[in-house]
Amino acid sequence: MPLLFKKIKDLRNYLKSRRCEGKEVGFVPTMGYLHKGHRELIKLARMQNDIVVVSIFVNPTQFGEGEDYDRYPKDLERDLSICEEEGVDVVFAPEVAEIYPKGYRTRVCVGELGNILEGAFRPGHFDGVATIVVKLFNIVQPNRAYFGEKDYQQLKIIQQLVEDLNIPVEIIPVPIVREEGGLAYSSRNVYLSPEERESALAIYKSFQLAEKMIKAGERDAKRIKEAIRAFIERHPHVKGIDYVEITDENLKPKETVEKGDRILVAVRIGDARLIDNWKVEL
Amino acid sequence: MPLLFKKIKDLRNYLKSRRCEGKEVGFVPTMGYLHKGHRELIKLARMQNDIVVVSIFVNPTQFGEGEDYDRYPKDLERDLSICEEEGVDVVFAPEVAEIYPKGYRTRVCVGELGNILEGAFRPGHFDGVATIVVKLFNIVQPNRAYFGEKDYQQLKIIQQLVEDLNIPVEIIPVPIVREEGGLAYSSRNVYLSPEERESALAIYKSFQLAEKMIKAGERDAKRIKEAIRAFIERHPHVKGIDYVEITDENLKPKETVEKGDRILVAVRIGDARLIDNWKVEL
Repeated sequence: MPLLFKKIKDLRNYLKSRRCEGKEVGFVPTMGYLHKGHRELIKLARMQNDIVVVSIFVNPTQFGEGEDYDRYPKDLERDLSICEEEGVDVVFAPEVAEIYPKGYRTRVCVGELGNILEGAFRPGHFDGVATIVVKLFNIVQPNRAYFGEKDYQQLKIIQQLVEDLNIPVEIIPVPIVREEGGLAYSSRNVYLSPEERESALAIYKSFQLAEKMIKAGERDAKRIKEAIRAFIERHPHVKGIDYVEITDENLKPKETVEKGDRILVAVRIGDARLIDNWKVEL
Repeated sequence: MPLLFKKIKDLRNYLKSRRCEGKEVGFVPTMGYLHKGHRELIKLARMQNDIVVVSIFVNPTQFGEGEDYDRYPKDLERDLSICEEEGVDVVFAPEVAEIYPKGYRTRVCVGELGNILEGAFRPGHFDGVATIVVKLFNIVQPNRAYFGEKDYQQLKIIQQLVEDLNIPVEIIPVPIVREEGGLAYSSRNVYLSPEERESALAIYKSFQLAEKMIKAGERDAKRIKEAIRAFIERHPHVKGIDYVEITDENLKPKETVEKGDRILVAVRIGDARLIDNWKVEL
């Protein structure tokens, strides 16, 4: 079993002595309820580091009013066995009061990149993400940290903040892992009924449709976005599409699509809000 | 002579190998134009650490529109000889573009503590301070960092952010150093003409007046503040008093004065804006 720490001080003491032995630390921050996507992050961390630390913490400050903080799925027992299977050395699973003691005030503010796409629908979300990530980096002081491309905007924001704040950690992006059928793994998929899950496949299929249009010569972002939107909308249980956007790799909206651009979508299906993205390959 | 680094990468390489030898690093962040106050910070750092790093960087993001960024005094040659005299090992004096390359966006936001007192007169100042301090901590990764009590609000904000963001550094406060006559050492004293400097002594004298009132039994913060204000205002060259406040040690305003409280003032004299503070001893 991996070592389980709930206190910052205990984790730090352990890691300090490992670091003094010259060990390199790989870090996978998660909100728990681990799935195959997390496993890929952990596998890569396992290959590239001496010590692998996984944090499990559902961060309240990145959830907005009326979002799913209270019902976010949790299963520490299961998470620990997955970590064991993947050869994780240390699991850090603090209580909220350990991370945010009374009186905390300082936040990391990510600026414009945090106000577009997800940020436009979840005000304050990325400042919450940035703050917890900076805190966890300071607690773990890893050599490398692993983030999935599923949360592409989050990945870009973290890359930006690491550069902006001169944080001495290497950010390693890991490609999206999809179920058979194309649904991207997400802890929030648990909110979907079997019928809604069927509808959720529309997201992946819409990317395939877009890729097909682009391969056939279509380059107009507006027309591609409209096709994606129309395709997803005609599926049952789709309650709304928060956005369909095509950007360059740095999240700058595009009018003319090129290789390497990203298609990003957020769709509300049943009680779930799913995000996904696709790299235009051509 | 201390080693002089202008590039983050070179400084990091040097410190990395020192740290691997088990050396502890003490850090004194400054805006240069070093004076006796800085010397005290350096002396303490010298006593408590194996390696002493002094940074010299006039941080543009903590200056507001119309403030003295462009005329802030600079003298790197002189600073280097002071550092040599005090046994500093490393001086880090980067250009602005090294610290803020094009496209930087992330800021550290300190919240309410940054909006009162100095923050009310210098909007954004403390976010600028917090951001550069976090960046420098990440670049230097010191064991200890030294801050003067002269900038008392800055000290409290840095203590708060280090705790809030779990930064692994010990903050060491150093008492105010005063010239004969009581004027607190400050790089900005250079803006004062001899006559204005004479008037500036009113600040220290007003603290002595307050201490006397308190010793005589006065506990009403309002009356003490009024006495300080009236005393300072009757001196020539005093262009205005931005604030006179009495707070507890955590900057919470007080109505009834106790031992350990702080009196904080900001006064505009000639072309200078001077801040100072005083711990109520009783």
